[in-house]
Amino acid sequence: MDAAALVDLLPDGVVTTDPEAIEKYRFDWSRDSTAGTPLAVVRAENTDQVQTAVRWAAEHRLPVVPRGAGSGLSGGSSAIDGGLVLSLERMRAIEIDTDCRVAVVEPGAFNAEVKAAAAEHGLWYPPDPSSYEICSIGGNVATNAGGLCCVKYGVTTDYVLGLDVVLADGTLVSLGGKRIKDVAGLSLLKLFVGSEGTLGIVTRAILRLVPKQAERSTLVASFADVDAAARAVVEVGRSIRPSMMELMDHASINAVEDFRQMGLDRDAGALLVAQSDAPGAARELEVAVMQEACQAAGATEVFVTADAEEGEMFVEARRAAFPAIEQRGSLLLEDVGAPIPLLPELLAAITTIADKYDIEIPVVAHAGDGNTHPIIVYDASEPASEQRAREAFDEVMHAAIALGGTITGEHGVGRAKKSALPDQLGPEVMALTRRVKDALDPDGILNPGAIL
Amino acid sequence: MDAAALVDLLPDGVVTTDPEAIEKYRFDWSRDSTAGTPLAVVRAENTDQVQTAVRWAAEHRLPVVPRGAGSGLSGGSSAIDGGLVLSLERMRAIEIDTDCRVAVVEPGAFNAEVKAAAAEHGLWYPPDPSSYEICSIGGNVATNAGGLCCVKYGVTTDYVLGLDVVLADGTLVSLGGKRIKDVAGLSLLKLFVGSEGTLGIVTRAILRLVPKQAERSTLVASFADVDAAARAVVEVGRSIRPSMMELMDHASINAVEDFRQMGLDRDAGALLVAQSDAPGAARELEVAVMQEACQAAGATEVFVTADAEEGEMFVEARRAAFPAIEQRGSLLLEDVGAPIPLLPELLAAITTIADKYDIEIPVVAHAGDGNTHPIIVYDASEPASEQRAREAFDEVMHAAIALGGTITGEHGVGRAKKSALPDQLGPEVMALTRRVKDALDPDGILNPGAIL
Repeated sequence: MDAAALVDLLPDGVVTTDPEAIEKYRFDWSRDSTAGTPLAVVRAENTDQVQTAVRWAAEHRLPVVPRGAGSGLSGGSSAIDGGLVLSLERMRAIEIDTDCRVAVVEPGAFNAEVKAAAAEHGLWYPPDPSSYEICSIGGNVATNAGGLCCVKYGVTTDYVLGLDVVLADGTLVSLGGKRIKDVAGLSLLKLFVGSEGTLGIVTRAILRLVPKQAERSTLVASFADVDAAARAVVEVGRSIRPSMMELMDHASINAVEDFRQMGLDRDAGALLVAQSDAPGAARELEVAVMQEACQAAGATEVFVTADAEEGEMFVEARRAAFPAIEQRGSLLLEDVGAPIPLLPELLAAITTIADKYDIEIPVVAHAGDGNTHPIIVYDASEPASEQRAREAFDEVMHAAIALGGTITGEHGVGRAKKSALPDQLGPEVMALTRRVKDALDPDGILNPGAIL
Repeated sequence: MDAAALVDLLPDGVVTTDPEAIEKYRFDWSRDSTAGTPLAVVRAENTDQVQTAVRWAAEHRLPVVPRGAGSGLSGGSSAIDGGLVLSLERMRAIEIDTDCRVAVVEPGAFNAEVKAAAAEHGLWYPPDPSSYEICSIGGNVATNAGGLCCVKYGVTTDYVLGLDVVLADGTLVSLGGKRIKDVAGLSLLKLFVGSEGTLGIVTRAILRLVPKQAERSTLVASFADVDAAARAVVEVGRSIRPSMMELMDHASINAVEDFRQMGLDRDAGALLVAQSDAPGAARELEVAVMQEACQAAGATEVFVTADAEEGEMFVEARRAAFPAIEQRGSLLLEDVGAPIPLLPELLAAITTIADKYDIEIPVVAHAGDGNTHPIIVYDASEPASEQRAREAFDEVMHAAIALGGTITGEHGVGRAKKSALPDQLGPEVMALTRRVKDALDPDGILNPGAIL
């Protein structure tokens, strides 16, 4: 197969078959070792070009892997040998409609760019993956991305009002619109959110915006162990909705301190970094509720600040966990979740697995949502270390499943977690998934190997 | 066909074929004149019985119409000649898990019962259709029901964390769970929400709860016309999220006053009833913002109260619109929506249609969401009046479509709005809808005639 015909169908510079250029499009951040080498990369400039490329691929039954910023963590955009990579990186227009309070966004625009464009009008796009400065809205929609403020403000799907989607045969459908409430017909819109490019390719999203976030106060509490911290999280949830509720375990605290001295309590078994953005005096009230819950749960120290900059420092420390831990070796990133009160059990299981495989697994968590990121550190130059890491990765997913949890709270299944999906969903739901996939993509050209 | 075999398969009293008993299960509130007479009504007591009934129907290729409380407004549960009505009214268990902050609910439980059970633990289930005292959670899930507080708190789908669903062949699938964030696999959970019984029958829902709502302050503003009121709605949305933003037009105000003297301003062209539930002193601030926006938009009078009882009186007046208008004749209930800034255009179009067909169409609206309920009043004893009403009904839907709006914001398509759906969605989305339906219900036994 050769892509010359496709090159001819599209304007100069849209299709590249140059091996060096292609190399950059083979991997996402998961550095999936099974990623293939595509026949060509299409860097589409508009929906029409996406349709042309998909039609051509459909005609030749070639796999198409859609790709946003390539910051995915589950191998959802690993390239496939002989297929197309359909990059949306050039489609990044953002239009803010202040009267309708929506952003109309092309998929290549970064999350941070949408936030910035909204902020110019006193508006806010809440979803905030830790990678918000470098991840694309298309990828956010594809994975139904979450983030730190989701504990109060919900995830990507809660903000998607409309989508333009190119289907497997190149047909363009327009779902939803600038209307807030709409139940006309099946919820196809919501079906495409989180479908990881396996059902269609999003070329435009209409995103709901809300008034800008109020000032935040920050609370940082140290605990002797994660169990006590998790108890505080459950207690807080009984009466208020904090706008952030993050947890760092002993290992991740120390990894951050090793990386960059931030004054975190190295002896703490766990740290909670929480925020309230309640308006006015209610903020103090909410912080007081959190403080009391932490103390009742046995916090060894609680620090509170209404100073935005000082608060941001602690959020920074939490965000630094990933680069800090990256210093320690190669990483396998987990994204497992459990019902919130089972967080201690999940974290205990992770510790047991770390011990069993003699491997480091620091954990940071969106604790208020029961969504954790155990980060498995291994030595890529040692096959035995990598083997132990892979086995631990699998065992962590199964620990989450055993607790009625999930193998992925916000990163997606991609290719990295696919093997554990049937164990979570069971054969009936897998069969149902397959039926929907086959109905929408009968030849299986859209991101084959992801999810299914 | 006779249902004797089904009677034998299920315990005594579950299946009824008694004509008098059956009569009560033919209609929902839309009083759809095309409703048929079912072969039998199955009043299932548990999931197992639902599976048995669906399997039997599948074997004989009989239509199955699922039914909750029968309060639907779009003919979504009109019975079909010779089919089964599968009533979930007996399945009404409610279990509150305070640690996970969820309600585990059977589909026959009323919305109000879930709210009450949650309230016992200081928790709150926000979605609040006007019919919340008599509508079932199963129906709420089937239509993705909205309500008055949705303007701040979202609709049913935003609260559904898990569903047990019986598929067209009787298979039971369990989707989601007590975990808050979960992106493992396709969003099948969200696909079933709003599917109006055409893809499966919900037998259990896991619903997210939030801490109880704070005290509310109420604002009531009179305007010379709906245009001015709509401008105030847009302005308010720029800076705050009120917890209620309802509109009544001149005709609905007067219908309510005729029905029950509540002291509303009969001369007003439009009334806004808005609330803030911001915590503490922020509430006053939000009310001040709303007051200012109303005055800037030309309100002729603005009344504010922090007294809960006094506020509730005005919400009552708004809720009384439906029974009040019911006194005036037979009704066709619309549920059309538009992008919020186009509300004035939508309301103007409705007035034009009312004039054209010489028919009364009072309007109440969840204005903050752009979702309106024009209520077409006609004389059922006069065929010409009914004919004019039906033409007006159709024209109102098309007016909404022309504005980039929707034929239904929260009631569902059912059978009443089915004819207009292709005009809203277009042939490509209709074809996609058909493909999903066929994949999940290849023999078309689940609620045939609804949506498609």
